Amino acid sequence: MSYKLLTAALILFLVTGIGPDVRAQASEDSAFLRRLADVILTDGKAYEDLRVLTKTVGPRLSGSAGYYKAEAWGQKAFQAANADKVWLQECMVPHWVRGGRDSASFEVPSGAGTVSRASGRHGLDILALGNSVGTGPKGITAPVVLIHSFEELQQRKDEVKGKIVFYNYPFNPTFVETFRSYGDAVRYRVFGPSQAAKYGALAVLVRSMSHSVDNNPHTGALVYNDSFPKIPAAAVGLQDADKLAAAIGHGGEVRVFLRTPAHMLADTAAHNVIGEIRGSLSPEEYITVGGHLDSWDPAEGAMDDGTGCVQSIEVLRAFKAMGYTPKHTIRAVLFANEENGGRGGDKYMEEAKAKGERHLFALESDAGGFTPRSFSMGVSDTQLAAIQPWLKLLRPYGVYEFAKGGGGADVDPMQKLGVAVGELRPDSQRYFDYHHSRKDVLEVVNKREMELGAFNMAALIYLVDKYGWEGGL
Amino acid sequence: MSYKLLTAALILFLVTGIGPDVRAQASEDSAFLRRLADVILTDGKAYEDLRVLTKTVGPRLSGSAGYYKAEAWGQKAFQAANADKVWLQECMVPHWVRGGRDSASFEVPSGAGTVSRASGRHGLDILALGNSVGTGPKGITAPVVLIHSFEELQQRKDEVKGKIVFYNYPFNPTFVETFRSYGDAVRYRVFGPSQAAKYGALAVLVRSMSHSVDNNPHTGALVYNDSFPKIPAAAVGLQDADKLAAAIGHGGEVRVFLRTPAHMLADTAAHNVIGEIRGSLSPEEYITVGGHLDSWDPAEGAMDDGTGCVQSIEVLRAFKAMGYTPKHTIRAVLFANEENGGRGGDKYMEEAKAKGERHLFALESDAGGFTPRSFSMGVSDTQLAAIQPWLKLLRPYGVYEFAKGGGGADVDPMQKLGVAVGELRPDSQRYFDYHHSRKDVLEVVNKREMELGAFNMAALIYLVDKYGWEGGL
Repeated sequence: MSYKLLTAALILFLVTGIGPDVRAQASEDSAFLRRLADVILTDGKAYEDLRVLTKTVGPRLSGSAGYYKAEAWGQKAFQAANADKVWLQECMVPHWVRGGRDSASFEVPSGAGTVSRASGRHGLDILALGNSVGTGPKGITAPVVLIHSFEELQQRKDEVKGKIVFYNYPFNPTFVETFRSYGDAVRYRVFGPSQAAKYGALAVLVRSMSHSVDNNPHTGALVYNDSFPKIPAAAVGLQDADKLAAAIGHGGEVRVFLRTPAHMLADTAAHNVIGEIRGSLSPEEYITVGGHLDSWDPAEGAMDDGTGCVQSIEVLRAFKAMGYTPKHTIRAVLFANEENGGRGGDKYMEEAKAKGERHLFALESDAGGFTPRSFSMGVSDTQLAAIQPWLKLLRPYGVYEFAKGGGGADVDPMQKLGVAVGELRPDSQRYFDYHHSRKDVLEVVNKREMELGAFNMAALIYLVDKYGWEGGL
Repeated sequence: MSYKLLTAALILFLVTGIGPDVRAQASEDSAFLRRLADVILTDGKAYEDLRVLTKTVGPRLSGSAGYYKAEAWGQKAFQAANADKVWLQECMVPHWVRGGRDSASFEVPSGAGTVSRASGRHGLDILALGNSVGTGPKGITAPVVLIHSFEELQQRKDEVKGKIVFYNYPFNPTFVETFRSYGDAVRYRVFGPSQAAKYGALAVLVRSMSHSVDNNPHTGALVYNDSFPKIPAAAVGLQDADKLAAAIGHGGEVRVFLRTPAHMLADTAAHNVIGEIRGSLSPEEYITVGGHLDSWDPAEGAMDDGTGCVQSIEVLRAFKAMGYTPKHTIRAVLFANEENGGRGGDKYMEEAKAKGERHLFALESDAGGFTPRSFSMGVSDTQLAAIQPWLKLLRPYGVYEFAKGGGGADVDPMQKLGVAVGELRPDSQRYFDYHHSRKDVLEVVNKREMELGAFNMAALIYLVDKYGWEGGL
């Protein structure tokens, strides 16, 4: 047998399954999943749910009026999906407010103007970072220092006192998976402000984490280090970041003006919104599927994470619409406060622990409603190998990979209880065009891509519910 | 060895390759492809090429002034890409013109109005079908007959004489791959007009082939059967199609008014635009990569098929930029007249045949610049099995499947010469939101998705050039 024929035979072997029993089960599952897909693709409610959430609720940052409207929306959506039980789970959340319009500009000293850099004042489109403090009504005006990395900051630490630090770290285009670029760059947003404050900086600007071709700034949370002064910080769009960097590069003292009215209020009560289908065989054992209900204030939170919420509701609705009762209890959870605290996910885990609940799996969708490609799985190597045969069932619907990895930020705390977690990993190319920016609106969601994500989530839950982590078929 | 361990071992075996030699080659190829990806993802010119094509040339239907501007653009783009040779290949193409604004409306008789259907006149957003005849300046007003399928048309053939037939065949949402829905529905657009004319219909309206959530009509070519009168025909957007169907469903005679100034002019000369890198070892053997340069008139032809053109140019440019000379001569072809005649593809094949050229492969990109998933391959089963090991090289960049199938419409004629063909198959969910409608503009293209398509095309050509159809690594 030649190498080529051997390869072909092996592939055939993997694709068609092992023996007659396995094939029969795969065929039964395949038929079930086809019906499930039909329910979601022809009569799905996720897109209409998302329309109502984005267009009638809109932005819903923790503690905002929008968040409480969203809680009410979520309860109604679960009821319309025929959940057996719908309830709220309270947790305390931070309450940050933008407080008004952010503004910024930079000034090139007169006489220092060149063809590519006019002297005078140039506006900067910015968004204050979440959790940041404001500048006071007069704003801050100071010379700006261009910094490309924390290593450079360390080397030039004596230059930043009394100045504004501008982190211009690029979103690496050579990573095919954009979440890798994000993971690589986001430390400048999260930790950059306190790192600069450590050396006496007055404020921070940070290049937005995005491959977008426009100038929209992308906000997101920072985390202050209490050892250093809390200084204001804002994200700059890519085109403005390039202009500012070019202006600084030409030499001469470039001064930046920054004004943001952002501030933190006292913690306030908010809720995870939970809907449930009671299991037929092991109702005291749970499978969780969720997204997060809160979203940043500049837009509608369609991709982050409206789609994850409506997909999770759709999993419940589709099972109910088919008259299918899983063995285990399936909970869909719309988590509170993922964006700037993670308190909803923590609370869900803490209550599960306090009640001694048994959880089989917790799955999240928080990477956008894009066309599905894979699932990241926080399971053991043995479990990961055991579930590989499921891929032939998912592949016709776009998922071709179970990759070792974590779940989403809201379900990852469940790992502390030894619970297997996972996350839908749709195609990542467009996510950071919209993420935390004014462009995260319903219109960037393709209805069918999002529905296919919902289907694959429901399919994986069906398989985990039926076979557990023994896998196989 | 348990079943699970066996499966895991087999997967490992397939993923890691077979022996040390194979692994060394795979590693060399893997390193080359990484550099190729870097060239395209960090310093790619495809998006800027596309911007110039869409924003300075725009619509470019065969015979239009836009098409000749596009030919000039293509030659310049090949020169900028450092092609060794750039030339035009002439062919005669049909020259259809829309001729002005299309208009249509339907009228519900007074007294027949209901809550859901007001009496009176309702506008319809339409686009005349490509190749269609016009109505004359006064338009056509006639009762409309709602038809759901050719079977129904056959059964009700006595009812359509002197009327306007409205084909309201749905775009099937249960097909995950939207090109299947298109293949299923497009016969009503292509053949529906003559089928209706056969029974004396005066004109045809056809439901647009799309899953879109808006009301944009989607045009496209029809083919008249010379045995029957040529009657005007137009596409209706989905929302208007639903309204019209609902109005007809309520009973009473609904009349449609249709006016289109469309008409066909005499055939005219146009050109395939070709750029070439001369091969180092077998320069007289060719590999072709292409897209089609013509596009429908309502928009910019960004996805159909601007992306295929600029991706093909990028394949040449990237090889040149890396200083890489393939063994065979690589030709990038911007084909003429795919949309309403296919004359460019025919001409390319005819000239290859007349000159006795030897062609190893002809690859097309005409399914949009979306995130890549697979290649459709018009090769033998043995060849298809032989190239499977290549997938592990492409998988990090999104392509995980070689599927048996055809090439694109422009390269398929090469199959008559026994040439292997293929087509990039990106994710299909969004394609028919834009296809042949006013929405097919630059702004719906994601730069990186399109670049990843270009990379995978270049990678496949590199592999075919290096290993031929023996495959392996």
